[in-house]
Amino acid sequence: MIGKFIQENITYDGSQLSSLWAFRNFGLQGDSIVSFRGSCEVKIDAMVDLADVRDGDSIYSEDMLHFIVEHFDMDLEKAVTRQRLLITIIKELLEELTGCRLKRKGDDLYHGENKLSVSIATLSPVSSMIHTAINISSNNTPVPTISTSELGWPEHRSAELAEEICQRYVAEINSIFMARCKVRGVD
Amino acid sequence: MIGKFIQENITYDGSQLSSLWAFRNFGLQGDSIVSFRGSCEVKIDAMVDLADVRDGDSIYSEDMLHFIVEHFDMDLEKAVTRQRLLITIIKELLEELTGCRLKRKGDDLYHGENKLSVSIATLSPVSSMIHTAINISSNNTPVPTISTSELGWPEHRSAELAEEICQRYVAEINSIFMARCKVRGVD
Amino acid sequence: MIGKFIQENITYDGSQLSSLWAFRNFGLQGDSIVSFRGSCEVKIDAMVDLADVRDGDSIYSEDMLHFIVEHFDMDLEKAVTRQRLLITIIKELLEELTGCRLKRKGDDLYHGENKLSVSIATLSPVSSMIHTAINISSNNTPVPTISTSELGWPEHRSAELAEEICQRYVAEINSIFMARCKVRGVD
Amino acid sequence: MIGKFIQENITYDGSQLSSLWAFRNFGLQGDSIVSFRGSCEVKIDAMVDLADVRDGDSIYSEDMLHFIVEHFDMDLEKAVTRQRLLITIIKELLEELTGCRLKRKGDDLYHGENKLSVSIATLSPVSSMIHTAINISSNNTPVPTISTSELGWPEHRSAELAEEICQRYVAEINSIFMARCKVRGVD
Amino acid sequence: MIGKFIQENITYDGSQLSSLWAFRNFGLQGDSIVSFRGSCEVKIDAMVDLADVRDGDSIYSEDMLHFIVEHFDMDLEKAVTRQRLLITIIKELLEELTGCRLKRKGDDLYHGENKLSVSIATLSPVSSMIHTAINISSNNTPVPTISTSELGWPEHRSAELAEEICQRYVAEINSIFMARCKVRGVD
Amino acid sequence: MIGKFIQENITYDGSQLSSLWAFRNFGLQGDSIVSFRGSCEVKIDAMVDLADVRDGDSIYSEDMLHFIVEHFDMDLEKAVTRQRLLITIIKELLEELTGCRLKRKGDDLYHGENKLSVSIATLSPVSSMIHTAINISSNNTPVPTISTSELGWPEHRSAELAEEICQRYVAEINSIFMARCKVRGVD
Repeated sequence: MIGKFIQENITYDGSQLSSLWAFRNFGLQGDSIVSFRGSCEVKIDAMVDLADVRDGDSIYSEDMLHFIVEHFDMDLEKAVTRQRLLITIIKELLEELTGCRLKRKGDDLYHGENKLSVSIATLSPVSSMIHTAINISSNNTPVPTISTSELGWPEHRSAELAEEICQRYVAEINSIFMARCKVRGVD
Repeated sequence: MIGKFIQENITYDGSQLSSLWAFRNFGLQGDSIVSFRGSCEVKIDAMVDLADVRDGDSIYSEDMLHFIVEHFDMDLEKAVTRQRLLITIIKELLEELTGCRLKRKGDDLYHGENKLSVSIATLSPVSSMIHTAINISSNNTPVPTISTSELGWPEHRSAELAEEICQRYVAEINSIFMARCKVRGVD
Repeated sequence: MIGKFIQENITYDGSQLSSLWAFRNFGLQGDSIVSFRGSCEVKIDAMVDLADVRDGDSIYSEDMLHFIVEHFDMDLEKAVTRQRLLITIIKELLEELTGCRLKRKGDDLYHGENKLSVSIATLSPVSSMIHTAINISSNNTPVPTISTSELGWPEHRSAELAEEICQRYVAEINSIFMARCKVRGVD
Repeated sequence: MIGKFIQENITYDGSQLSSLWAFRNFGLQGDSIVSFRGSCEVKIDAMVDLADVRDGDSIYSEDMLHFIVEHFDMDLEKAVTRQRLLITIIKELLEELTGCRLKRKGDDLYHGENKLSVSIATLSPVSSMIHTAINISSNNTPVPTISTSELGWPEHRSAELAEEICQRYVAEINSIFMARCKVRGVD
Repeated sequence: MIGKFIQENITYDGSQLSSLWAFRNFGLQGDSIVSFRGSCEVKIDAMVDLADVRDGDSIYSEDMLHFIVEHFDMDLEKAVTRQRLLITIIKELLEELTGCRLKRKGDDLYHGENKLSVSIATLSPVSSMIHTAINISSNNTPVPTISTSELGWPEHRSAELAEEICQRYVAEINSIFMARCKVRGVD
Repeated sequence: MIGKFIQENITYDGSQLSSLWAFRNFGLQGDSIVSFRGSCEVKIDAMVDLADVRDGDSIYSEDMLHFIVEHFDMDLEKAVTRQRLLITIIKELLEELTGCRLKRKGDDLYHGENKLSVSIATLSPVSSMIHTAINISSNNTPVPTISTSELGWPEHRSAELAEEICQRYVAEINSIFMARCKVRGVD
């Protein structure tokens, strides 16, 4: 599994959540987690979460750290379970780095009442995909949010943060695979 | 999905990790997480983790809080992924309740160098199964361990702890199922 | 699993057979069977059954009781097997209620030479889906048909009929799930 | 898929519900439904349905028509769904042949309060398996039962009945497979 | 499984690689391998292999023997594995018929440095699909190629070649299915 | 995926075809192909191929090159398909090295009427497994056989042969995985 931070600033508009985005754009072939920094603006037509569509929610942030995950299997329940682990990894790392306490609710992270993250998992015709992003800025968001810098992690070190998250997710997935290769069955 | 704490004290010897244990013993039919309190002593022949067998590790604890999870599907990779979420849920709850900081390494929880938990996931002929347990006592364990009471949660309230863990795991699994019922596919 | 009869009259034109239709329109999240009453007119471009397209068949009925089923797994063979059970449930109920004798041929119901039902099962990008409908009117259909009222069930009680079918299908699916949670494997 | 009635009288004791029974004994290779006539006596150790074991139920009949089904896939939910269709096929045929009215409850057939059938579905290490049997005699059964001869089908024509059931089940499974090979996907 | 050579000359432009192409055009229902002869010209928008798109490769041949395979399951890894077997079958047959020596590299066949074949496997919304084609002419191809006639198989006997390939692929797939219906599981 | 030749001489008696054999004995964790040299003597009770058991065939060879493959998924059809590719790889390599012509019939290799190989694929409770072996000696075999040395490959270079086969199988499986990570879906 590949983990990579892309230096280029990219606005996330939902079009990145499509199959083989990492391969088409960066030549990364195979299961991958790719991170980049950029604003987030998803128009209603590009929304994948129909609960948001029903609620008329908009998704907007001036500056986020994004993660696009692609696994070449097509089990959405497994993808959502992995999504929760990715959120857990982000939570664990930010708590270690900043000493803060975050609260995970499903696939969302909160600091008090303020939302740190957005996330969605879905299927493409050939893979399962996750988009998770955390705020680098909390300005002008449609709901109360908090940013990584407000938590205490300097904005100019966002790339480092992203790289460590990618690396830990890759290690987690690899160790999950290995964990299934050491147990006998039971009756 | 069913979550239940069993009042009866049961010694975990590995035989509980077999298909339909919850149904045969307690009439609990369907996906379930069942908890009980008791010592833990797994003989080499009952060990499921062949890495432990290879290393000659023994598993022993005088008093633990046990969780037996059964899902009626047979995807071991998914089972291991769920096992990681169960460990995460236990970590999050203990941190909330006691203010301590735990470290998760894969499917293990540590406080400093001391191990809090044991865990394994495997397949039965009709289901996938997880055993996870956390020390209520750290006496006489073969490796340095820590107990929930040393973390600050009173031993006589172990049942409460178990019930909350079961309830949160059930809620997590249910919300994972629901999360896959609200997204459209992408290209 | 959710079963629900929608009071609103809806013309079935094929667009209802799309993923998350029940969620987008009625907020019903999860596996579901949703019923409504309305005419049926499926244009060639909206047809899913390519055998019908090849044969140049048209699908038309002035008044039908419709059932849209969605399961969030993606096994078409399983979906077709469930579709046959849904047809069986409708047959059993109508025979009980009216004393008539129907003949099931695969996923179709007949009374003598007259067709009572239409049905199709397919996959969406995130789920498997079934549309089944039975004639409330047999007027002006392109092939000889029979209606529920001709079988002896009063047209003004169609909602009751639909609700009982939904309820039985939900019970059947739930009991199938439970049946797999009580057997040990064999050699 | 193979359907075959075996002329030899065989006592069903549970050992027939094991993988490749049809291949090992009759050289039938592939998905199959094999029928035979014989008494039924399943000792507690051979029982697969742990609900029966829990209830202390015994399974006994002096003379039954047995069906052993094996499909070389390992999805127990699909196997149970197919089991329901097999029961439906038996019901439909007996109603056609004798003019009686039977009641299906899940995987059981009843005439009034009297039970006509027993059935179980489970997994082997390489396949899914179903045992279904209907009473040719209702003598000395532990619960009130009815036999096919009491329904009006002569005992000496049991082989014919079995052959027609096998043939219809084979046709049903084949048509299910074909039904999934004629539909386009939907959005 | 169905194998069939279509007499009609058809230009392969990528549109043939879509679900139920064999059923829509020739009424062939079920898993199938369909062969035809014709030129090959796939425009960039119709390309399925994004590695070719990234490299700016074009696919062109004046005259090829084409094979379109459709299996009604949706496991791309299995489809690619079957694709390799199809290539193997073509290699084995050409070596037998002409005495030449070919080299297989993954899903490609070479004679020395000259490419004999093109191939791709992917998923449709309801099936897995393979396109494999071998050159009947090597004129004007964008890379150095070799044709079946240069290998020693006369061009006017291409239909025979295609029919034998179809027949062997059908036999291979059938024998794979049968091979899984004769083994017991191991510990 | 791991490929490894074990220097130790091991008699293959069927017990090697069990889950995690490579991990338990050599600490090799994950999908693997492990090769060793030794005689082959499988008693009737250890036979996995029930067609052999039915035919009363015995399996015996004084000296073979063995390959034990384990993949941690449980799709027997996929395992058999991979088994055919492994046989293909062995065939291709021996033809390259010795200039001989072999004939593949399903999962067997022949030189004229003489059999070079034995092979079986099956499931364990946690994985799929393949045993394939080729004769280094053709002495005293129950059917006419041929050995690699008779084909022209010197016996003392058997380890080299094994290592190249392992390496090519690993490369093939890896390239199959990669092939599914570069294609978009089709309609």
